[in-house]
Amino acid sequence: MKKIGIIGGIGWPSTIEYYRLICEASQIYHSGKNFTGPTPMPEMVIESLNMNFTINNRGTTESGSWAVWDEYFNHAIKRLENNGAELIVIASVTPHGRLNEISKGVNAPVLSIYDALGDYCAHAGIKKLLVLGTMPTMSSPAFYTNLAPFGVDVQYPHDEKQKSVVVDIIGRLYQNKREGAGESIDQAVRASISASDLENSAVCLGCTELPLAFPDFPGEASFRVNGITYINSAVVHASYAFRACTHSR
Amino acid sequence: MKKIGIIGGIGWPSTIEYYRLICEASQIYHSGKNFTGPTPMPEMVIESLNMNFTINNRGTTESGSWAVWDEYFNHAIKRLENNGAELIVIASVTPHGRLNEISKGVNAPVLSIYDALGDYCAHAGIKKLLVLGTMPTMSSPAFYTNLAPFGVDVQYPHDEKQKSVVVDIIGRLYQNKREGAGESIDQAVRASISASDLENSAVCLGCTELPLAFPDFPGEASFRVNGITYINSAVVHASYAFRACTHSR
Repeated sequence: MKKIGIIGGIGWPSTIEYYRLICEASQIYHSGKNFTGPTPMPEMVIESLNMNFTINNRGTTESGSWAVWDEYFNHAIKRLENNGAELIVIASVTPHGRLNEISKGVNAPVLSIYDALGDYCAHAGIKKLLVLGTMPTMSSPAFYTNLAPFGVDVQYPHDEKQKSVVVDIIGRLYQNKREGAGESIDQAVRASISASDLENSAVCLGCTELPLAFPDFPGEASFRVNGITYINSAVVHASYAFRACTHSR
Repeated sequence: MKKIGIIGGIGWPSTIEYYRLICEASQIYHSGKNFTGPTPMPEMVIESLNMNFTINNRGTTESGSWAVWDEYFNHAIKRLENNGAELIVIASVTPHGRLNEISKGVNAPVLSIYDALGDYCAHAGIKKLLVLGTMPTMSSPAFYTNLAPFGVDVQYPHDEKQKSVVVDIIGRLYQNKREGAGESIDQAVRASISASDLENSAVCLGCTELPLAFPDFPGEASFRVNGITYINSAVVHASYAFRACTHSR
């Protein structure tokens, strides 16, 4: 298995989620296979960053304003590569908005969450995806442009009010306040997709907190609640990374 | 805060435990302090090793038989240091038995679990410690010799039969079979310490699986059950590492 590099700390609970999902994927992959001793695991190296620094150094639309932020991530990704990582994942959706800038000069493949989700949707026959995430995620064209090559039509909640509702839910989940979160997400989805479109659409939980609203489906890439198909982007991304690490060199 | 390096993967659940404990310690440390944005976290770098490789390359009493194992850990610790780790912890008790060999040529301090426990016992006034752990842990003099300078008298379960009982409990807990584990540990302790000694002794859960037998005390450095004082070595070690990372340079 190839060595996996992980950019973590953005935030730390999602880092645990990715690491756990990859280890569990290795247990499933090896079950029934022949080996001596404990289940083989891919080697991993994790650079856990300080989210306080990244949030306080976010740029604006002004040219050059992201320089410090970009360099912080870029240096961390390079350290992963220097430490032998043969493939790299960022255990957070939001930094993917600046994937090109932060992976400059890196030779190891950085497996983006867009490719992971695009691949998943293409295999599952999903053509329409409503993406719920943080405000930077829902304000950036990155999801549209990167999922289009997979034949996936991406949309975000229609108006600023609905986007704010999603951001509020994430804020509450981040403090582990789960009561009513599933119902609030259900309402936000129905305010954004017509009933007739619901059947051929899926909803991407594009922020690591959001799946906490559905505690009955831990570790499942996709699940249905009340007629809505949800996709857990962390599970899809971590599984994609594990599969890549088992490909022959 | 200084950057913390962690040797993980031995096994992966205990790596999650250490990482989570350090992040939670930072949340507690910063509560009530002034800062903007999310809670500041120490940067961390984690090298997660393949436990299948380490177990299959364990040495014997024969000279030179640990060379491959030692090198595997030593190189990983050096990678942590090269990636900026200013202090290092190994998130597992067992490899501490070869701490001198595996930290050769490393300049950053490797904070041993012995020092962490010795410091804890000295502050808590604990003079006698019954250590429960894996068979390599309970067969090595490392705990005695390293805790003696802190005024702590270490013992292991008396005979091979009692040691096997502990190893069996660990094996069941590793498969998440918790029923009756607390009671079995209680019996193993009473078979090793006289009732009169119980009052001035503590029991070190010196293997990351053992605290799973006491699910009512997650994250507590020490707790009392049925008249026995238990010490969770992972909590003590992770807290020690966090405190060290906040010391001024």
